[in-house]
Amino acid sequence: MQNAYASLVEFSRDLYALRSAVGVLSWDQETMMPAKGGDGRARAMASLSRVMHQRFSDPRLLETLEACASAEGLSPEERVVVRELRRDRDKAIKVPEALAAEIAETVSLSQRAWADARPKNDTASFNPWVAKVIELRRREAECLGYSETPYDALLENYEPGARTSYLRKLLNDLKAELVPLLGKLMDAQGKTPPTLDGKIFPVAEQRGFNMKILSAMGFDLEAGRLDESAHPFTEGLHPEDVRLTTRYSEKDLMSALFSTLHEGGHGIYEQGFQPRFFGTPMAEAVSLGVHESQSRLWENQVGRSRDFWSCQYPDLQKVFPAQLGGMDLGGFLKAINRVQPSLIRVEADEVTYNLHIVLRFELETALFGGDLEPAGLETAWNEGMRRNLGVVPDQPSQGYLQDVHWSCGLLGYFPTYTLGNLRAAQLFDAANLAMPALKTDIRFGRFGALKQWLNVQVHQSGRRYDGDALMEKVTGAKTTAAPFLAYLKGKYGDLYGVTL
Amino acid sequence: MQNAYASLVEFSRDLYALRSAVGVLSWDQETMMPAKGGDGRARAMASLSRVMHQRFSDPRLLETLEACASAEGLSPEERVVVRELRRDRDKAIKVPEALAAEIAETVSLSQRAWADARPKNDTASFNPWVAKVIELRRREAECLGYSETPYDALLENYEPGARTSYLRKLLNDLKAELVPLLGKLMDAQGKTPPTLDGKIFPVAEQRGFNMKILSAMGFDLEAGRLDESAHPFTEGLHPEDVRLTTRYSEKDLMSALFSTLHEGGHGIYEQGFQPRFFGTPMAEAVSLGVHESQSRLWENQVGRSRDFWSCQYPDLQKVFPAQLGGMDLGGFLKAINRVQPSLIRVEADEVTYNLHIVLRFELETALFGGDLEPAGLETAWNEGMRRNLGVVPDQPSQGYLQDVHWSCGLLGYFPTYTLGNLRAAQLFDAANLAMPALKTDIRFGRFGALKQWLNVQVHQSGRRYDGDALMEKVTGAKTTAAPFLAYLKGKYGDLYGVTL
Repeated sequence: MQNAYASLVEFSRDLYALRSAVGVLSWDQETMMPAKGGDGRARAMASLSRVMHQRFSDPRLLETLEACASAEGLSPEERVVVRELRRDRDKAIKVPEALAAEIAETVSLSQRAWADARPKNDTASFNPWVAKVIELRRREAECLGYSETPYDALLENYEPGARTSYLRKLLNDLKAELVPLLGKLMDAQGKTPPTLDGKIFPVAEQRGFNMKILSAMGFDLEAGRLDESAHPFTEGLHPEDVRLTTRYSEKDLMSALFSTLHEGGHGIYEQGFQPRFFGTPMAEAVSLGVHESQSRLWENQVGRSRDFWSCQYPDLQKVFPAQLGGMDLGGFLKAINRVQPSLIRVEADEVTYNLHIVLRFELETALFGGDLEPAGLETAWNEGMRRNLGVVPDQPSQGYLQDVHWSCGLLGYFPTYTLGNLRAAQLFDAANLAMPALKTDIRFGRFGALKQWLNVQVHQSGRRYDGDALMEKVTGAKTTAAPFLAYLKGKYGDLYGVTL
Repeated sequence: MQNAYASLVEFSRDLYALRSAVGVLSWDQETMMPAKGGDGRARAMASLSRVMHQRFSDPRLLETLEACASAEGLSPEERVVVRELRRDRDKAIKVPEALAAEIAETVSLSQRAWADARPKNDTASFNPWVAKVIELRRREAECLGYSETPYDALLENYEPGARTSYLRKLLNDLKAELVPLLGKLMDAQGKTPPTLDGKIFPVAEQRGFNMKILSAMGFDLEAGRLDESAHPFTEGLHPEDVRLTTRYSEKDLMSALFSTLHEGGHGIYEQGFQPRFFGTPMAEAVSLGVHESQSRLWENQVGRSRDFWSCQYPDLQKVFPAQLGGMDLGGFLKAINRVQPSLIRVEADEVTYNLHIVLRFELETALFGGDLEPAGLETAWNEGMRRNLGVVPDQPSQGYLQDVHWSCGLLGYFPTYTLGNLRAAQLFDAANLAMPALKTDIRFGRFGALKQWLNVQVHQSGRRYDGDALMEKVTGAKTTAAPFLAYLKGKYGDLYGVTL
């Protein structure tokens, strides 16, 4: 029976290697590929998708899985490997190979169409791609099956176990709390809060500081790299080859820094699995909503905190003496934590960010449910922005064309951002409970204990627990908004000396 | 029957896409992969090798090939596609999947062992890898079969149709001519020929000039890119995504320039196939010996000629006025064409280069034939250098550890460099016959007609002809050393005003 398990691991490692090849192709497409390379690349993606599909369909895999299921003497972790591969296989074979390949090829092409359309505000050329992607995803959802609504089948791709009805309630409740909080904070900030706007921060110096922070967090630069791309992302090819990107603008010091902290958090997760399980589901992330909790924790709970900057800010001032010499720590913290309803999700502050997600969720469920056509997206978007945030874009590149997700077929993905925000706050509370010296550590630039705690509590479990089960095990409760709201109130209350 | 052909093309495009994925992984390994990424990458390479092998073994492929072989109404080009895929398939299935995967994984690891060993002159850790690679290649040769000697089976991988006995005679005859020519040239040059040594050429300016030359040659930078790596190479992922690398040294202006011209020549071949055949053998290179004729023609016949520099040198002087202002065109040409027996193959001049290849060929046939053990390589290398070139390295990094090939398993590859040198001269003669204005064009920096001629005469044939058949079709004769020797004598005779 140990033989069956060994064959299964062999299968898993092979599949993982193929996924890792897809990862290289995808990273390369975003960072290195020349303009005309798109057609060939889309073809390669489709071929690899077919290959992986064929592996899952191999009847020998089913035999092996069944032999493993009845095997005795497997460890709990080995049982997780069997269970999760069975889940992946059952899911994969529900979608016909031709459909899976068509999706892979279409999203590779569609992403390019989006990249062409966005700077030109060319909605006419983009909308048919959205329609095509939705149609393909709808066909996929029908193949996958669902209990309440087809959108559930898509959520399952990114956050196993999450349901549309559950997220609708969570997001609506959160919105109900955030809107009044936003009003209070706008008042507390006053009309002219401190700002970094208008200053120029040369990119070469930014690069040096970013690399220093990434290294200090504990990201292993011999098992990964940091590059630049239009949209920052993390591609974990293998726990020993994790690719991060950031983007620099000399007008915006914090954009690259927060991206680096954010992607660094993702990267530490990808590097944090147990070596003996490399290439199996025990060395894979639980879900996107847990992944995002890792990036957000480093970006926000750590990277926007007074503790963090009380040590790092003097160093940053040394790198940019002319630009920051005249601004004290309190002013800097207000500047980098400024709350302001704005058009672009990825640049949003911690309070308004989730209101962007609410809009994406509303639009996706409407598009997917047939209540909204792609041609109506622009209008629906602008109305939603007015309703949720009180600001309206004057062009689609600042509006519904801003994110790559829909062109990539990533429908059902956005809600995991909010799950990540909530879980980050919840996990950070648990970390502080477990390690009373944590804030002091951070105040002195020491991140080793935090990284180690996350490694043990979150990363090393691989896919052993689903998102809520993991939260319950580590924090004693399922995902909930209370710690996040308390965190915001505590932090901003402290910043402005008010009670929220 | 047209249906069978359509299925075959579908198979071919899929296989091509997988090869292109391997190409990205391989390019990334040399240019981007972090230090610890090697194990995961080797695994991915082995998995993809298995996948490709399985495709070739699919009984449906054989059925399709047989249906195509008896099909009527196929064009000559379509018959080439059928013939070459049959050849690839018959060859692939002779090697068991496990052996193919073991080779893929071993050469990926072995290459890293070489990269570690070379700077440390660590022959003890490298020799076992050579032994392992040779053992695997010997097993492969036995699977593939051969008529005269197992080394023939390896040659077939790089230069279909070439035989050990044929190459031995060609190389020995060439050596017999080159050795006395080298002596005469050393005399003609005198003791203190002009030199660029000792001057510093900032890399940023070199980059600009290199990009200008690459663009002028006609390499399409929207369908490719130029990066930097320890060892320059070309990776044609797809005719619309061709990756070149070069390497810069501020002490050596010509190293990057000749690499760029060389890899640019390879790149123009890879970009030059007919779009309607993309993804089939009609859009693949004939052989490495023909590939090398393209790189050498641009590097040497064009890039080391008086015609080329009479237009480019004034521009180069403008980029480096302090360094080159005092050197006239004649002096510059003597400096960049200096003949000098030296230790490193890739830095060798046009006369001594082939003497390095003779040594590699002698050692490989001895290793492969069992007349030489890896442990004896260093001694055999040093003796061969003394015999062929009259110089001896004082450390292995300057000796038998200098090239990546053996660690990569590229046995039988070196002779194609000399085939390339000979064919480049032969093709350039044919081009001048066909286009009497060619030298004038080059003198004015116009390369369009040459590129077009190469596209039509060489690139667009894909794998329609083998190396010698192509040479016969384009130049009227099989590969021969006479044009190359005449080219050297003419060029150096002109440079030094002597008769050779």
